[in-house]
Amino acid sequence: MEILFKNARILRRPSSGIVEEGELLVSGTRIRFVGKKAPSGDYDKIIDCRGGLLMPGFKDAHAHSAMVFARSASDDLPLDRWLHERIFPLEERLSPGDVLALSKVAVLEYLSGGITAAADMYYFPEEIAEAGLRTGFRFLVVGTPREDGEGMEEFMALLRKWNSVPDSLVRFVPGFHAEYTATEGMLQALSKAAHELRMPVWAHNSETAREVEECRRRHDGMSPTEYMDSLGLFDYGGGGYHCVHFSRGDMEIFRKRGCHVVSCPGSNAKLASGIAPLTDFLEEGISLALGTDGAGSNNALDMFYEMRLAAVLQKLRLGRADAFDGLLALQAATEGGALAMGLSDSLYLEEGQKADLALIDLDRPEMRPLNDIARNLVYSGSRDAVRLTMVDGRILYEDGEFHLPESAEDIYRKAEEVTSRLLSESKDA
Amino acid sequence: MEILFKNARILRRPSSGIVEEGELLVSGTRIRFVGKKAPSGDYDKIIDCRGGLLMPGFKDAHAHSAMVFARSASDDLPLDRWLHERIFPLEERLSPGDVLALSKVAVLEYLSGGITAAADMYYFPEEIAEAGLRTGFRFLVVGTPREDGEGMEEFMALLRKWNSVPDSLVRFVPGFHAEYTATEGMLQALSKAAHELRMPVWAHNSETAREVEECRRRHDGMSPTEYMDSLGLFDYGGGGYHCVHFSRGDMEIFRKRGCHVVSCPGSNAKLASGIAPLTDFLEEGISLALGTDGAGSNNALDMFYEMRLAAVLQKLRLGRADAFDGLLALQAATEGGALAMGLSDSLYLEEGQKADLALIDLDRPEMRPLNDIARNLVYSGSRDAVRLTMVDGRILYEDGEFHLPESAEDIYRKAEEVTSRLLSESKDA
Repeated sequence: MEILFKNARILRRPSSGIVEEGELLVSGTRIRFVGKKAPSGDYDKIIDCRGGLLMPGFKDAHAHSAMVFARSASDDLPLDRWLHERIFPLEERLSPGDVLALSKVAVLEYLSGGITAAADMYYFPEEIAEAGLRTGFRFLVVGTPREDGEGMEEFMALLRKWNSVPDSLVRFVPGFHAEYTATEGMLQALSKAAHELRMPVWAHNSETAREVEECRRRHDGMSPTEYMDSLGLFDYGGGGYHCVHFSRGDMEIFRKRGCHVVSCPGSNAKLASGIAPLTDFLEEGISLALGTDGAGSNNALDMFYEMRLAAVLQKLRLGRADAFDGLLALQAATEGGALAMGLSDSLYLEEGQKADLALIDLDRPEMRPLNDIARNLVYSGSRDAVRLTMVDGRILYEDGEFHLPESAEDIYRKAEEVTSRLLSESKDA
Repeated sequence: MEILFKNARILRRPSSGIVEEGELLVSGTRIRFVGKKAPSGDYDKIIDCRGGLLMPGFKDAHAHSAMVFARSASDDLPLDRWLHERIFPLEERLSPGDVLALSKVAVLEYLSGGITAAADMYYFPEEIAEAGLRTGFRFLVVGTPREDGEGMEEFMALLRKWNSVPDSLVRFVPGFHAEYTATEGMLQALSKAAHELRMPVWAHNSETAREVEECRRRHDGMSPTEYMDSLGLFDYGGGGYHCVHFSRGDMEIFRKRGCHVVSCPGSNAKLASGIAPLTDFLEEGISLALGTDGAGSNNALDMFYEMRLAAVLQKLRLGRADAFDGLLALQAATEGGALAMGLSDSLYLEEGQKADLALIDLDRPEMRPLNDIARNLVYSGSRDAVRLTMVDGRILYEDGEFHLPESAEDIYRKAEEVTSRLLSESKDA
């Protein structure tokens, strides 16, 4: 299958901000040519981009896709009531099949927003993987061992099984929810497993000030980062989700271990957790990615919003309009995410890379005039301008329509059924 | 002309959050029926909403539409360099016809984002009015007198002329840029004119901390609000744009005078001006509206973003996830804006009101599941979901296409020409 994109503007490397005019040829799952004029051939499909922008797809580096059930079912509550009265009781009711049905709604949202891959940590991890395989979407599933630390062999077997499929859309990495929900025994067993697997470890980290304080009380004054590092959890890298309340010492550990920060500005703002010090991370040489978190807390799964919010919150935090360059947000939302998720084949629009890309319609008013297209993406870009999304060489979204085995209507209907059941059971409880 | 919307969900009053199912009938420029089943008749057009949401259009209560020329031409600079090196030199080059050409791009952006009216203060105010009349969009033009305060009779004649047209899409109110760019002589003359016209007065007010400090130094310790009030400028109401650095005393004046606050969270964040104390305004009983400001500073003209940012920034500012209810942002973006702009006929979807409305597609993933549709608009809504926008009974945007006398392509092309000229002259200078 060969697909030619012609009359395109092309942003090969988002961090460069450089846009060129030309053509891009996809052959199978990979990019075969990027440049002025593609080699002629008998293409299966030719797409006239009409001057639109081809760019690497966004990477949502922290998500709980299935949490769409909680979207707008739990707004405007204090964090502890949100978690304990709304989210936990609903999650307890999740049954087999629910996560698959719900995650597909999130996949629709990813695709229609130009997102080509998401890192997802949630219950029923193999259902997340299934949602990826059935829709053609790329998932990095962050698997978590049992809370008591037992069954570590089965956990490792699960990871090995999913990672043994060559060139798969789905890969697994190990992780755990957070220091405050983990036992030390489990973390020690997980660290041992990560060493054996030689794999990075991911966890929520320092999302709230209280979380850091309580960790210090529990663990001889250590921050969550210091504590995790003391257990050897970062010996093969990995990283943290949120990292709002990070000290310079925490950053030094992340830098030394090659760990990534995945910032979730939308979720951190809505839950009033604070503003992460993104400029400090970059100053310390830490690789930065962005994530949407789940729809229960954010509530949109929209990387345009995350980029823009990331940039303007740093300006507000430091009281300087030049405190953060919009291009850094674009880099985090694309290249930074790919690096955090180990997707070194989905970094750029270059020959040999995976065909994971988005086509942005520049004939939308919010993209005009064309003064600086890359910064336009950050500061006025919108899912409204996403014309096409391709994952692994397949067009999954085009001109408002999804090209999936199942219709969007069916996906919505099944997710509404699951949501109604969860919410009504919750009211009964 | 009669247009029936059937199979609709209807949000009559955004502040209520209550959504009902039914039909809405538009006759001429006004709503003739809202309810379960419209009276049968020989309609000119029937629109199947397919379960989508009809809501009052958004009101952008502070805009500089023509500033689209500066979109992404001036990002990530400190405020003073942004203003003095980029914006002012470009604005000096504006020629007759430019504001008309540029404002039309903004109108496209308003319409595709569900916005049905904007309050605009800018150079060449009659060209803003023309942009409204030629596209069918509703503008409140905030006219400003000459800087030296001369020609006040002509200024009043201009206002009277535009306001003498019955049922017009365009109305004028008096205003001035800001205390720091005004002479006392001009303000005294303007106050006299406003008394004679019995009209509200609008101005930028307390956008930055420095503006307030410098005003206090210039005017016997008075804040901009105290100073303006001392000149009688608010005797017939009006209000302030931004109001980021407002004291309780300022609020007391606004409350007493029936003045409105138009908050511009997107612009205030990107320019690092601060977070306005919205919860305090509401506590003091001040009516709150939202505005996008111009594309030079924001850069999107998108009320979904403004609503969401307004809500989450209050949560961040106060450190409490329950500090601000999303519904208050929706109210400000619709009813609050209509009140600020004197559009008492465009407040609600009720019989007799103007047919200024948006149809939101709820079959978009970011709107699913349908747990709380009103809060969905605020926390995950997007211009992507706007299916149709109607102003004054006319469908100006539907299914991604604009229904205007001029094509979007022509509007883009002319605006690109003007922008190229402004930017290249600026480089030569």
